[in-house]
Amino acid sequence: MLSIVLIGTGNVAQQLFTALDNKKEVKIIQVIGRDKKKLIPFNNCPNTATGYEHILDSNIYIIAVNDDSISAVSQHFKNKSGLVVHTSGTMALSALPDSVRRGVFYPLQTISKERKVDFSEVPICIEAESNEDYDVLKNLANTISDQVQIMTSNQRKLMHLAAVFVNNFTNHLYLIGNEICAEAQVPFNILNPLILETAKKATQMSVLNAQTGPAIRHDQITIEQHLEMLKKENHKDIYSVLSNSIQKTHGNKL
Amino acid sequence: MLSIVLIGTGNVAQQLFTALDNKKEVKIIQVIGRDKKKLIPFNNCPNTATGYEHILDSNIYIIAVNDDSISAVSQHFKNKSGLVVHTSGTMALSALPDSVRRGVFYPLQTISKERKVDFSEVPICIEAESNEDYDVLKNLANTISDQVQIMTSNQRKLMHLAAVFVNNFTNHLYLIGNEICAEAQVPFNILNPLILETAKKATQMSVLNAQTGPAIRHDQITIEQHLEMLKKENHKDIYSVLSNSIQKTHGNKL
Repeated sequence: MLSIVLIGTGNVAQQLFTALDNKKEVKIIQVIGRDKKKLIPFNNCPNTATGYEHILDSNIYIIAVNDDSISAVSQHFKNKSGLVVHTSGTMALSALPDSVRRGVFYPLQTISKERKVDFSEVPICIEAESNEDYDVLKNLANTISDQVQIMTSNQRKLMHLAAVFVNNFTNHLYLIGNEICAEAQVPFNILNPLILETAKKATQMSVLNAQTGPAIRHDQITIEQHLEMLKKENHKDIYSVLSNSIQKTHGNKL
Repeated sequence: MLSIVLIGTGNVAQQLFTALDNKKEVKIIQVIGRDKKKLIPFNNCPNTATGYEHILDSNIYIIAVNDDSISAVSQHFKNKSGLVVHTSGTMALSALPDSVRRGVFYPLQTISKERKVDFSEVPICIEAESNEDYDVLKNLANTISDQVQIMTSNQRKLMHLAAVFVNNFTNHLYLIGNEICAEAQVPFNILNPLILETAKKATQMSVLNAQTGPAIRHDQITIEQHLEMLKKENHKDIYSVLSNSIQKTHGNKL
């Protein structure tokens, strides 16, 4: 059985706790977080701590804090013999002290507090510095997910960037769709089938071939009408920049 | 039973043909398309024609041609007693001749030739000029879909604009994600769970609350790193414009 100390109380820490806590292959023996109140969701855990004075000995230390704090927090573990990992997409493995066995355990998924993550299909991107440590991280990842991917820090950074496009930016486009529905006095859920089909299509056919719409058709009349209909400057900018990029990418195909 | 003459041989015409052809409540009695070759997929239909000389009498004429051709094509039907409808999101009902009973039958979905559309969940946006014609269109729509929405031309135009954001533009973001994966030498399908979850989330929780990422966190260091990692100017532009819009929309919440 792998013993785990979990550091952090945010979205990722909470969802990992929920996913790992009922697995017989692992045991979360301690959760560390600065704020006592934020430790409440972790009350199942036999030991919680608001500081680093009494860190329990453990096979793995999972540092699930925000990117800016990883370096500082990881200093508290620099004399530990267990494997110290962070969960960030953007930070390199080298953000952790070189005195320890170090690694990365990055779940490639959008993680919020209010929505339970089903990790079984979430790709877990792992990085380590020895075959033994890769095996430890693979075993840990396999307890919650069927998809484990070995990646370098640079590959993981690129995956995080890709995730910003397909998740963060896409969600913002949904929000603009929502605002347009409000203006039309039509409920946003009328777009649900379109949103879901667009996503499914991307997983089942070439996204290059799936492109449709006024931009790829070079339908300048509709493009100009749309720009007029948009009231906010930032929405107009998004419309123009994306239409231009679609035309640049696809050329005069149609 | 409703008799239908279908005009057009493109994606929408083909998918409507497939969806309507096996319904006992309707009968497609003729398909009209300029190009003989493009009429081949409609060979099931007892009558196909490449011109407008011998239009059969019918309850409904569905004009599923591209937006620019709707006005001209619809002139051929100006003496018909049946209901003449187009299938466009952007064109007003008034694009059709005012001498006929006219209407709109707009399926709010992304429609390509190579992927069969399951119309059962596709919202069909209808418009007509009399209660009788609304009933005809409702009956027609209900043969293939459970979601029928009455909309004005202006509402439909706004829905089409919203669809450009949540479908056309979103698909382009997926394509950029795909290019980044290629650069990282990681298969694009690693993003499938993220793409699907992002879409599902939008249909189940507030898209305002679902927003995450470096832009809403005002994580300027990551934003600058990402801009440096992007090689194409159009991708940099998209990144900046969307990040600015996210920050403008959400302010300093986090």
